[in-house]
Amino acid sequence: MKINKIEGTVSLRRSLDQGTEVQRKAVLNVIEHVKEAGDNALFTYTEKWDGAKLSTLKVSKAEIEQAYQDISPQIIPIIHEAAENIRNFHQKQVKQSWLSTKQDGTILGQQVTALDAVGVYVPGGKAAYPSSVLMNVIPAQVAGVERIAMVSPPASDGSLPTGVLVAADILGVEEIYKVGGAQAIAALAYGTETIKAVDKIVGPGNIFVALAKKEVYGMVDIDSIAGPSEIVVLADDTAKANEIAADLLSQAEHDERASSVLVTTSELLAEAVKVEVEKQLVDLPRESIARAALEEYGAIYITSSMKEALHVVNELAPEHLEVMTAEPMNLLPYIKHAGAIFLGRYSSEPIGDYFAGPNHVLPTNGTARFSSGLSVDEFIKKSSIVMYSEQALIDSVDKIAAFARLEGLEAHARAVESRFK
Amino acid sequence: MKINKIEGTVSLRRSLDQGTEVQRKAVLNVIEHVKEAGDNALFTYTEKWDGAKLSTLKVSKAEIEQAYQDISPQIIPIIHEAAENIRNFHQKQVKQSWLSTKQDGTILGQQVTALDAVGVYVPGGKAAYPSSVLMNVIPAQVAGVERIAMVSPPASDGSLPTGVLVAADILGVEEIYKVGGAQAIAALAYGTETIKAVDKIVGPGNIFVALAKKEVYGMVDIDSIAGPSEIVVLADDTAKANEIAADLLSQAEHDERASSVLVTTSELLAEAVKVEVEKQLVDLPRESIARAALEEYGAIYITSSMKEALHVVNELAPEHLEVMTAEPMNLLPYIKHAGAIFLGRYSSEPIGDYFAGPNHVLPTNGTARFSSGLSVDEFIKKSSIVMYSEQALIDSVDKIAAFARLEGLEAHARAVESRFK
Repeated sequence: MKINKIEGTVSLRRSLDQGTEVQRKAVLNVIEHVKEAGDNALFTYTEKWDGAKLSTLKVSKAEIEQAYQDISPQIIPIIHEAAENIRNFHQKQVKQSWLSTKQDGTILGQQVTALDAVGVYVPGGKAAYPSSVLMNVIPAQVAGVERIAMVSPPASDGSLPTGVLVAADILGVEEIYKVGGAQAIAALAYGTETIKAVDKIVGPGNIFVALAKKEVYGMVDIDSIAGPSEIVVLADDTAKANEIAADLLSQAEHDERASSVLVTTSELLAEAVKVEVEKQLVDLPRESIARAALEEYGAIYITSSMKEALHVVNELAPEHLEVMTAEPMNLLPYIKHAGAIFLGRYSSEPIGDYFAGPNHVLPTNGTARFSSGLSVDEFIKKSSIVMYSEQALIDSVDKIAAFARLEGLEAHARAVESRFK
Repeated sequence: MKINKIEGTVSLRRSLDQGTEVQRKAVLNVIEHVKEAGDNALFTYTEKWDGAKLSTLKVSKAEIEQAYQDISPQIIPIIHEAAENIRNFHQKQVKQSWLSTKQDGTILGQQVTALDAVGVYVPGGKAAYPSSVLMNVIPAQVAGVERIAMVSPPASDGSLPTGVLVAADILGVEEIYKVGGAQAIAALAYGTETIKAVDKIVGPGNIFVALAKKEVYGMVDIDSIAGPSEIVVLADDTAKANEIAADLLSQAEHDERASSVLVTTSELLAEAVKVEVEKQLVDLPRESIARAALEEYGAIYITSSMKEALHVVNELAPEHLEVMTAEPMNLLPYIKHAGAIFLGRYSSEPIGDYFAGPNHVLPTNGTARFSSGLSVDEFIKKSSIVMYSEQALIDSVDKIAAFARLEGLEAHARAVESRFK
């Protein structure tokens, strides 16, 4: 990892794959085909791209039972406990409807309702994470979404990963379909004979999934399109180099495009972390991925003050921020932009990936400047409520009519005036 | 207007202009040009498309003072009162940060912070509505956004509409720029010499503005892209035909693509509304627009029961819903999808456009199934907070490590384990 002293502003080097025009056209074709041919198109693409010749899309009870046989039994209570932690945290995000009455008898308010149906995309192969199932399904369930349809590309033998099936079953997900890629997104957006259309699609995927989500947005809602994972560690000289190095590596092993950055006021610590990273890299199973990520997107920045360090952190607006300083909680008010903030040395970032409770679906690529992690809020909507009293309308009819006429909308003025004719 | 009896499902005929590939390419060119040439590109496009040869982009204090001279003086206190109502309603949406402590000493929570900078697009010409200024700026201000930059295309004499300038000044908006179209969106997203980049862009615009917003999404956040305005009136035989007709017309006069629909259990009322609409159309200044909208997108549906009527309303998921029944509040729990709900005969929809307090930026085209009107929530973000105690990590380190290894992420496991080495 390179060590840099800060001069002027800093911007995190990040990788964002927007896809090519060729990929976009291919995705548009897939969507059109699924709209026309429904399930048949799904079977065709699944054979073509996943190498699996299926006769049904829906995962059967027998397959779920088999997954429980195949999974390591000690992991099951851990998934249960993680799910409970995640559910407890998200329960705190539940928003209530409210009504407020004014003296003139007017009632104003907001009615909160859940989305009817949500689709959850779970990537296949090595990126098939049971934790993704938990993090995407639980907020929807807590919000009160009645129907959740999960889709995931099968292996060539037609199977889905055991961990994904068990996690989904633990949460009570009843619709799991063996289909992935742009064709799965099209099915969720437009519906087929087997898969009914949903109102929103969430979950990570490859570039074809991302492009398909972008295309169907408007027809259905989508979550944000995530870039590679990122961590920024903010540390002073009280932090331990081996712990910081381990945390930086845990992010770097995700993906060759992942970004791991240390921002510190301590030159000594910077040097020590650099050495530790090399030391710990050596026997890491995913060493080559982590090494590539650190070389391309890793960095160590030394700042002359904690104030400057905080400025750098806010400029970077990282997905994950660890604060390893003497009094981490004291710095919280100065942190403006970060998806998730981990305070103190016992808050190693991976506890947030699986277990602590907050969501691990977080804004990447600096979008923490304007967006938030996945939460219950993304699965509800708010209808505003207006119930004017007669007196309230008497008092305001002339003002409303005048405002409408200022905007040249005579029928608006006449509508409010019609009540007193 | 046509009267239909309901058979099976119903879907609202709506108009959604997605733009053409030619328009999209034109927008991409504009964005590239603004990125390269900055202010110069803005001057060029403003002369080319708005016919205004400008030497500065920013509205001056003298121009604001002139706007106060030109506007009808009695409208000023009305704008003030509307702004106060809107501010009061949005204050109720403010979300607090929270921290929650567990028995093992762990602290979990959410930190709520405002976006740093927001751009507000205000359309020009006849669609330059002062109410749009109020509805887009106030939620951002209530959220705590420090910098608000407004853009609007000038007339050929280089001026902006007086109502827009006065409304902006009343709210204390200090940055107003004379630039519109895709070039304004590009300037807000990427920044120029004069206009600093923002984090989010809101406000309605034509198809070029909509396409530009779609293109810059990801670099900045955007609000949803609105379709034409819609109203559904749900009424029983206690409602007054002339009032319903007036409200349907207030929506229809907006735009030839606006949609006005009555859903009623009363055949008598249906017939009476049809007659009233014709009667009131005759001397409406925007008669031809309203007539075109009603012919193409208007409808009256008669249902055999209120239950069926509610089903139709939820299928339509309208932007605006008026409930004109004997006991409108009793129906509220059965309304699942609507942008704003107006209850009772004194809640004529235009009171929501200007004055009542709730936002008039609402989900169109059936997107009320999954989205909400503009609110304070759109101008904040939530960072999750995790501060694990030593005891909490001791208790869970093995579980977290096991979960990480289930997902094949060894460095994740080692990161949490590193705390006890």
